[in-house]
Amino acid sequence: MKKNILIIPGDGIGQEVTTWGKQVLETVAQHYGHEFSFDEAIMGHTAIEANGNPLPDETLEKAKASDAILFGAIGHAKYDNDPSAKVRPEQGLLKIRKELGLYANLRPILLFDELLDASSLKPEVLRGTDILFFRELTGDVYFGEKSRNEDHTFASDLMNYHRYEVERITRKAFEAARTRNKRLCSVDKANVLETSRLWREVVQEIAKEYPDVETEHMFIDNAAMQLVKNPKKFDVVLTANLFGDILTDEASQIAGSMGMLASASIGDGTGFFEPIHGSAHDIAGQNKANPLASILSVALMLDIAFGLQEEAKAVTTAVAETLKAGWRTGDIANAETESDKILGTNEMGAKVLS
Amino acid sequence: MKKNILIIPGDGIGQEVTTWGKQVLETVAQHYGHEFSFDEAIMGHTAIEANGNPLPDETLEKAKASDAILFGAIGHAKYDNDPSAKVRPEQGLLKIRKELGLYANLRPILLFDELLDASSLKPEVLRGTDILFFRELTGDVYFGEKSRNEDHTFASDLMNYHRYEVERITRKAFEAARTRNKRLCSVDKANVLETSRLWREVVQEIAKEYPDVETEHMFIDNAAMQLVKNPKKFDVVLTANLFGDILTDEASQIAGSMGMLASASIGDGTGFFEPIHGSAHDIAGQNKANPLASILSVALMLDIAFGLQEEAKAVTTAVAETLKAGWRTGDIANAETESDKILGTNEMGAKVLS
Ligand SMILES: CC(C)[C@H](C(=O)O)[C@@H](O)C(=O)O
Ligand SMILES: CC(C)[C@H](C(=O)O)[C@@H](O)C(=O)O
Repeated sequence: MKKNILIIPGDGIGQEVTTWGKQVLETVAQHYGHEFSFDEAIMGHTAIEANGNPLPDETLEKAKASDAILFGAIGHAKYDNDPSAKVRPEQGLLKIRKELGLYANLRPILLFDELLDASSLKPEVLRGTDILFFRELTGDVYFGEKSRNEDHTFASDLMNYHRYEVERITRKAFEAARTRNKRLCSVDKANVLETSRLWREVVQEIAKEYPDVETEHMFIDNAAMQLVKNPKKFDVVLTANLFGDILTDEASQIAGSMGMLASASIGDGTGFFEPIHGSAHDIAGQNKANPLASILSVALMLDIAFGLQEEAKAVTTAVAETLKAGWRTGDIANAETESDKILGTNEMGAKVLS
Repeated sequence: MKKNILIIPGDGIGQEVTTWGKQVLETVAQHYGHEFSFDEAIMGHTAIEANGNPLPDETLEKAKASDAILFGAIGHAKYDNDPSAKVRPEQGLLKIRKELGLYANLRPILLFDELLDASSLKPEVLRGTDILFFRELTGDVYFGEKSRNEDHTFASDLMNYHRYEVERITRKAFEAARTRNKRLCSVDKANVLETSRLWREVVQEIAKEYPDVETEHMFIDNAAMQLVKNPKKFDVVLTANLFGDILTDEASQIAGSMGMLASASIGDGTGFFEPIHGSAHDIAGQNKANPLASILSVALMLDIAFGLQEEAKAVTTAVAETLKAGWRTGDIANAETESDKILGTNEMGAKVLS
């Protein structure tokens, strides 16, 4: 199989972790006889520094022309503390999501038995958890009109959804539920928001096409609570952009660390694969970042973008084996009992490769 | 001290739990020589059934004329599954918050040592947690203009904040931080939302007036994660209406159960005291609901609305003693080891009274 893969390292630890994602792809290509060719492009703070634009045209063109994109991370504290900055790294990420029509963000909560103890939740609460989030990614208050009045006494963001936006991701989520445990939980705030009421209506309608899937509706506040209380009760979780952002980060604690979670953004064209963690500038360049989320993003790419299930499985297994052998990065290690097994980014990457 | 207290039981388990809140108030009055007089009013589903209006004028008038309000719970599954219903119980709650100018919702996460094991979080993660949430309550996407087009293919809700709305709650939160551990964490989504950028600017400005308080800004997704990972790191958490709704429900798992959390809504006039739990129609009328959140709401009323610190303390202590003696309601009991100590609503209420 021949594929063009675009690597966008982005900001902070993005460079370090995508390096390992790329090496895993190279190893897979070699081993299974595929031809993966690579190109690289800039985005985010890195791109702003280079030419003032968080998503240069060249990056977008390369992205559209590629078969899949491996992305690192975005953001920089500089902008976070300056709410009035007009140009921001995140604009690059939001724009590429929109331009590539990446309306469905899949975030599987993959629980490695070895990391049961790394979580702040009790092992008995966690054991057996297997959740797949479908987060809508190109609508909601993220992309609605923003305003601020002249004397800075008022600001607004329009939260909004079109019916077709809800329909297409809902179908994808139901299709996935069919191949899993046949339960779907749609999360909204229909007791307060009109957007959520439209969302709920559409999900109710489409649910009729999937009578074999058990459908539930839950308010976001309750969902945020249930996810901590009893994560096992969820199978597929379907939700809007903003609620999905919040719930999936929260759910990262189920997997022990944000450093373990991969995501796939799909839609009309090229798929986009990225860890859910941020740019973590505080540890960037120190060989401390956990490369496993990037490596697991590669597994998602192989599976979803290329249909290479066997190869994807091999990558996930390599990660599991490495953890089973006791190797840890700082974020997933128990400081007391596992301190002698803590590896840097590069050593961890190398372990998985071997 | 002479006070008029309005009881609004609301829906579902609201009636059962406020009964016990009221009895605690009566006992306090007797014991400390106060004169509390009580009136009752309807709201929510109960009020819709009675006269089609979730917040009857009479209820609002009584509310404005009272010195404090003890509220039960709101909501009914009937409306949740019917997104097109025009009249909804929650409208009553939102309207009374707005009409009474209850812009600050205080939600203390009170951790009873006895309930450390009732949580899904590990005891060592929880121990020592003491968080006070300041949730803005009369602005945000809750109250912005809503729209739906004629053919139901589009819906929207305007998320918005005025500077003065952010200022007044921010000051209250900083004042509280001063009397506590002097740390304030403001939660927003300033990397995406204009509303959040205004929010962050205002908090940054006001923080200068409180140099003795350590101020931090956190994105909502990260906050939802940190709350599970390391709740101890928080002292005062300040946030907008929607984010506060989500975070405080999530945080209820720290206290073991939603059945334990009380809240105080304050602002321009009469204060409003309520459990953060919902109407729980599934257990309503079965003598199963946990009355402790309602009783703890009474403690907040005594403290915040009437300035009766000693009386408030006595109520909290009575709750702590009851838990120490091993008594539990179903929601906070360990099914295996504590089954013989499980009480109904009424028995639990009576234990606290005694
Ligand atoms: C960086 C930010 C804009 C982004 C989001 O909110 O979508 C991130 O948190 C994510 O979840 O991918
Ligand atoms: C019932 C609902 C409208 C309400 C809210 O979202 O504010 C509730 O969840 C709360 O937190 O008090």
